[in-house]
Amino acid sequence: MITYPSKLFEQAIKEFATLPGIGNKSALRMVLHLLKNDKARVKEFGEIIKRLPDEIIYCKQCHNISETEVCNICSNTNRDATILCVVENVRDVIAIENTQQYKGLYHVLGGIISPIDGIGPSQLNIETLIYKAQAGSVKEIIMALSTTMEGDTTVFYLYKKLASYPVKISSIARGISVGGELEYTDEITLGRSIAARVPYEGIVAK
Amino acid sequence: MITYPSKLFEQAIKEFATLPGIGNKSALRMVLHLLKNDKARVKEFGEIIKRLPDEIIYCKQCHNISETEVCNICSNTNRDATILCVVENVRDVIAIENTQQYKGLYHVLGGIISPIDGIGPSQLNIETLIYKAQAGSVKEIIMALSTTMEGDTTVFYLYKKLASYPVKISSIARGISVGGELEYTDEITLGRSIAARVPYEGIVAK
Repeated sequence: MITYPSKLFEQAIKEFATLPGIGNKSALRMVLHLLKNDKARVKEFGEIIKRLPDEIIYCKQCHNISETEVCNICSNTNRDATILCVVENVRDVIAIENTQQYKGLYHVLGGIISPIDGIGPSQLNIETLIYKAQAGSVKEIIMALSTTMEGDTTVFYLYKKLASYPVKISSIARGISVGGELEYTDEITLGRSIAARVPYEGIVAK
Repeated sequence: MITYPSKLFEQAIKEFATLPGIGNKSALRMVLHLLKNDKARVKEFGEIIKRLPDEIIYCKQCHNISETEVCNICSNTNRDATILCVVENVRDVIAIENTQQYKGLYHVLGGIISPIDGIGPSQLNIETLIYKAQAGSVKEIIMALSTTMEGDTTVFYLYKKLASYPVKISSIARGISVGGELEYTDEITLGRSIAARVPYEGIVAK
């Protein structure tokens, strides 16, 4: 048991230590960093955190974080509204946006089906996805979930739910990373990438 | 340039990214973690950060973080007030306290002399240390600073300042870590540990 010199100091360390990837030592460093900082800036930091829960809103169409009711991706008329990319969370939207390769819209599930963590389909934004498929304006739904047990389960669940609607379901390509070396690739990825081989012209054309 | 879906969201990420050891990706993870958390708890986290600058006080004797004017180490009559351990910061006090091997008091400098970072002796708690040596009640001052260029410079500076007072100046032992293997020890540490060898009885006695 580490004893800290002040209650508030200890509380602050404990709060930081609840953040992902942060243990007690890093939390201590962070709090000491804040104590050395300009007082006004630290107070502003606290204020920004306090504002988060009430002021961050989610786009009512794609469930991405947004400043307005409909986010600036969904409201952008230059984007192809007939393609939807289904992702787990906001982080994935940001990652895909950064590739600048995708011009369709998104649908953020807000998680993946994970019985271990007690997350079932009802806690995810699945109803609204089915509604979009029903409405008929969407032609293709791209599944861009992690290749984990939970990700695959979620894709399978969605596939079954969406199968009766006239929409093409696709999945982002799995395989060896660009620049990745064969010998360091895990067996499952390597095995799947052989099974899912594509004609050589296909690669060139892309 | 990464574009984020909301201004407040982006501000929060930038604030977290100013913390030591945190880049934009970790900051993003932290903010998303907070958004998933219970609203009341997140607001409390923000409130604790806001309280830090005004409510954390420093012991007027040793400059350690404290809840009261004089911290509970300095005010503990079971501790040996004739020995002072000079450390760089609060983290070092916590580390030494955790060893449960030290029963004297501390003196927290609040940094070390570092011309590169623009930190000179006047920004550190050195005056109060000299005053304590002058007062005559302290018999030994243990230097427990990092063995870096800056740490050694600071020790040398303090040594010169304190030389004229009737107080013994010592330094924590440097050498190979307990459990450390010779072949993986850096040359400087190994060299110094040979130069600073101690009689075998000494080790047993300790």
